[in-house]
Amino acid sequence: MDKKLIGVDLGGTTIKFAILTAEGEIQQKWSIETNILDEGTHIVPDIISSINHHLKLYNMQPEQFIGIGMGSPGTVDLEAGTVIGAYNLNWKTLQQIKKEIEKGTSIRFAIDNDANVAALGERWKGAGENDNEVAFITLGTGVGGGLVSNGKLLHGVKAAGEVGHMIVKPNGYLCTCGNHGCLETYASATGIVRVARDFAEEFAGSSKLKQMLDDGQEITSKIVFELAKKNDLLGKRVVEQVCYYLGLACANLGNLLNPSYIVIGGGVSAAGEFLLKRVDKYFREFAFPVVEKTTTLKLAQLGNEAGVIGAASLALTFE
Amino acid sequence: MDKKLIGVDLGGTTIKFAILTAEGEIQQKWSIETNILDEGTHIVPDIISSINHHLKLYNMQPEQFIGIGMGSPGTVDLEAGTVIGAYNLNWKTLQQIKKEIEKGTSIRFAIDNDANVAALGERWKGAGENDNEVAFITLGTGVGGGLVSNGKLLHGVKAAGEVGHMIVKPNGYLCTCGNHGCLETYASATGIVRVARDFAEEFAGSSKLKQMLDDGQEITSKIVFELAKKNDLLGKRVVEQVCYYLGLACANLGNLLNPSYIVIGGGVSAAGEFLLKRVDKYFREFAFPVVEKTTTLKLAQLGNEAGVIGAASLALTFE
Repeated sequence: MDKKLIGVDLGGTTIKFAILTAEGEIQQKWSIETNILDEGTHIVPDIISSINHHLKLYNMQPEQFIGIGMGSPGTVDLEAGTVIGAYNLNWKTLQQIKKEIEKGTSIRFAIDNDANVAALGERWKGAGENDNEVAFITLGTGVGGGLVSNGKLLHGVKAAGEVGHMIVKPNGYLCTCGNHGCLETYASATGIVRVARDFAEEFAGSSKLKQMLDDGQEITSKIVFELAKKNDLLGKRVVEQVCYYLGLACANLGNLLNPSYIVIGGGVSAAGEFLLKRVDKYFREFAFPVVEKTTTLKLAQLGNEAGVIGAASLALTFE
Repeated sequence: MDKKLIGVDLGGTTIKFAILTAEGEIQQKWSIETNILDEGTHIVPDIISSINHHLKLYNMQPEQFIGIGMGSPGTVDLEAGTVIGAYNLNWKTLQQIKKEIEKGTSIRFAIDNDANVAALGERWKGAGENDNEVAFITLGTGVGGGLVSNGKLLHGVKAAGEVGHMIVKPNGYLCTCGNHGCLETYASATGIVRVARDFAEEFAGSSKLKQMLDDGQEITSKIVFELAKKNDLLGKRVVEQVCYYLGLACANLGNLLNPSYIVIGGGVSAAGEFLLKRVDKYFREFAFPVVEKTTTLKLAQLGNEAGVIGAASLALTFE
């Protein structure tokens, strides 16, 4: 029988698991809650026992697996298989993930950060069409990125792919990283709401979004996009601004890397073609002519499954 | 005897050649003029006869070489070994470089574009310290770039490394590429003069640079830097602006690729530490904290020889 892969997508609220074929077909999937109590010390033992439990359930042995791949928040050391500073997991100190999971499951283990792993997933089985040149941007609470070139993830010294921290407006909004004008401050879910609040102050026309903000109602990026789609004047202005900065960042990324595809995923990308069309307009305005002709912007296709699929693909190096 | 490499750096005025060891030590070098007459049809035959002539001179046989590597202007097709659209060589139609040179010399041949080859040279034997993560920016008549990550040049679909066409100021100066606000329009030799002319119009204080411009004297980027070093007020303002955009571009490049080194070369980099210090100041302002800590800006070290050395290294794949 062909050997299988296990993919693990470790998040702050759930841990997703999948068993896949070496071709990336999901055969089984399940998930458990992330227990971040006691400085996150339950997380790795929970992962180990959940994998072992399911192997028993499916009557499978460790020898039937090529390996386990995992995506994690925080700063990942690929070689050592460790994670540090994953604050949404309460992991403040160095976690020996690889060592513990290999010992606990008797299966080889590889790890990378969550944005990189999602990029691998979309590249392999999603919008990236298994191309060797794919950039992935995820628009969520923050803005993350994963870059594949020459068929491999780019890691740089430590932190390649910090698309969310490209400066799109010098002296712009203050970012959690300490800099000003990072893409994330405009194009993340929270950034979009920030732009809305900012623009609302000076907005004089008629707008439901303006009304809601003035009423103190809770606004989300989803609401902003929904109202913009219904022609809300303020909503449209906010979306235009957000897409302008996204288009500028995609163009500068394209001018450096000229990938076949820039894949846009994450919660905000649920706005779909409405978002993509506007980002593409500004991308075309700012991209170098050859890049404009050869790099295509696309929406992500795998949704939640990008993580487990991409994570699993990390283990293919053990083949 | 250990096999050797041949490096060829094809430029619009001269063609540089070198014979190197597989470790990148130059053992012989020479150059010939580039004859661009008759649509550049003499160039490839001239290269072949110059190589064959020097092999005879040094009493060497084709079998003693691992291969020939060449850097060329224009759009290079690596696989096919062809070049098109190298306008400073009068090459408007497709040139079958690899085919002709392999036939003419009986030595294997590899080619890439001139900026990439210079990047490989600086990475291998220059400021890049043979690191796997090196970005190279060349400030000349234009602004070019070459990016090495995971130890390999990034090509993207066609045109990765277009550092000169990163947008540093939306709606800024019009670039030859048709876009506005490309780095090249501010930080190339001609861009710097453009900034000087632009700033001079609104400059009211005392400045030799202002005087020279008003007198209609010919200004070069070298003069601008020399005067700035002598505390010329307008000169300093121009240099500050140029370094601001360079620092911003380096930071965004760093945020995406997080290389060990961003190496700055080309004619303008002759301004040395005076330039580097100011670019670094803005790089640090705009770089993501981890990138600021792990990516170092450096001046190029090989000067004119980067081309032949990097070109030669292309042939190492034939080993």
